[in-house]
Amino acid sequence: MDTSVKAGGPERQRLTKGGRRTRERIIETAAELMFHRGARGTSIPDIQAAAGVSASQIYHYFGDKQGLVLAVIDHQTDTQLARQRPLLDSLDSIEALREWCDGAASRQDDRGCEGGCEIGSLASELADSDQSARTRLVSAFDRWEGPIRSGLARMQARGELSEHADTAALATALLAAIQGGMLLSQVRRSSTAYRQAVSAVLDHIESHLVR
Amino acid sequence: MDTSVKAGGPERQRLTKGGRRTRERIIETAAELMFHRGARGTSIPDIQAAAGVSASQIYHYFGDKQGLVLAVIDHQTDTQLARQRPLLDSLDSIEALREWCDGAASRQDDRGCEGGCEIGSLASELADSDQSARTRLVSAFDRWEGPIRSGLARMQARGELSEHADTAALATALLAAIQGGMLLSQVRRSSTAYRQAVSAVLDHIESHLVR
Repeated sequence: MDTSVKAGGPERQRLTKGGRRTRERIIETAAELMFHRGARGTSIPDIQAAAGVSASQIYHYFGDKQGLVLAVIDHQTDTQLARQRPLLDSLDSIEALREWCDGAASRQDDRGCEGGCEIGSLASELADSDQSARTRLVSAFDRWEGPIRSGLARMQARGELSEHADTAALATALLAAIQGGMLLSQVRRSSTAYRQAVSAVLDHIESHLVR
Repeated sequence: MDTSVKAGGPERQRLTKGGRRTRERIIETAAELMFHRGARGTSIPDIQAAAGVSASQIYHYFGDKQGLVLAVIDHQTDTQLARQRPLLDSLDSIEALREWCDGAASRQDDRGCEGGCEIGSLASELADSDQSARTRLVSAFDRWEGPIRSGLARMQARGELSEHADTAALATALLAAIQGGMLLSQVRRSSTAYRQAVSAVLDHIESHLVR
């Protein structure tokens, strides 16, 4: 998804190809730095040095640091969602849900459980201190929750999931288990907590299957 | 629990009563500031100004900022655990587990869902950047998980919970639901996500009850 038309900056509407590329490079660099050091721990001079751009270029494209943070939230959401398609569009069986959650566990193992969730860590840092960021994070989490909720709703429409199951609540519960599980796994440097957290919710969802 | 004998600082062993009081005031001030601004966003001069102490007093008691961060993690864990006793020592029925989780939801509602979890937010910020803090956070989460695990184990020992239930895994799943649910609730400014997250895991635990 093209983030250039959605986030921050006075010049976002009419960029040349070169301008779009520079803008993207700034966002990607800022996203990488903020993932490791947090948004507060990443300064404009840090981003300048790492992206090889001037401060005035950053202000030109994003207005201010807050504008850049909003663009980073959108970028991380777009990137993570894009990476997990088409699986994310077919979460309409318990097997697909388990496969999707297992994939995230394997990615955690691959990086030694460092790093946590790209959105979750920005959320924890910014939810109380930056109202615009919080609003953008609401939409980021909604975009994650949407495919889970749609998948469960399709299962229910096909009569595979009990009509009494609250598919929206179950989707939220699974997203929360993913977030909390990733945090515990990041701290403990083991994906076990994540696996146990999502497994409990997936077993609970499975208990609503119509046999 | 007395944090003065557990955390940071070269002078921790032999403090006068006045010294202990000053040390506690620094920790409490730092904890409050770090809860709102993060550990990175809280400088030694910020803490000096808010606690009315000199930089040399802070370095005297904690060695460096990292020592103070470790003391804050212990302090937040001690305080939150102490606040929730005796309920935390009697989590050996599904009703007690629900009451305990409901209490946290009410506290979130009372503060408009601002603030998240005192430990979780430090965990998200520090798990990758500060190895000593990560180790201390492992122990903080273990101290939270312990009472849940013990409660479930007592239920199992009494034959109320199926012998096939993995009580340690269920305790981790509930802690993860609490953490992930609090994060989503903090972003969405509504305790609904927290309530749905813990409810799914509690329902799952309930499915292991021996009727």
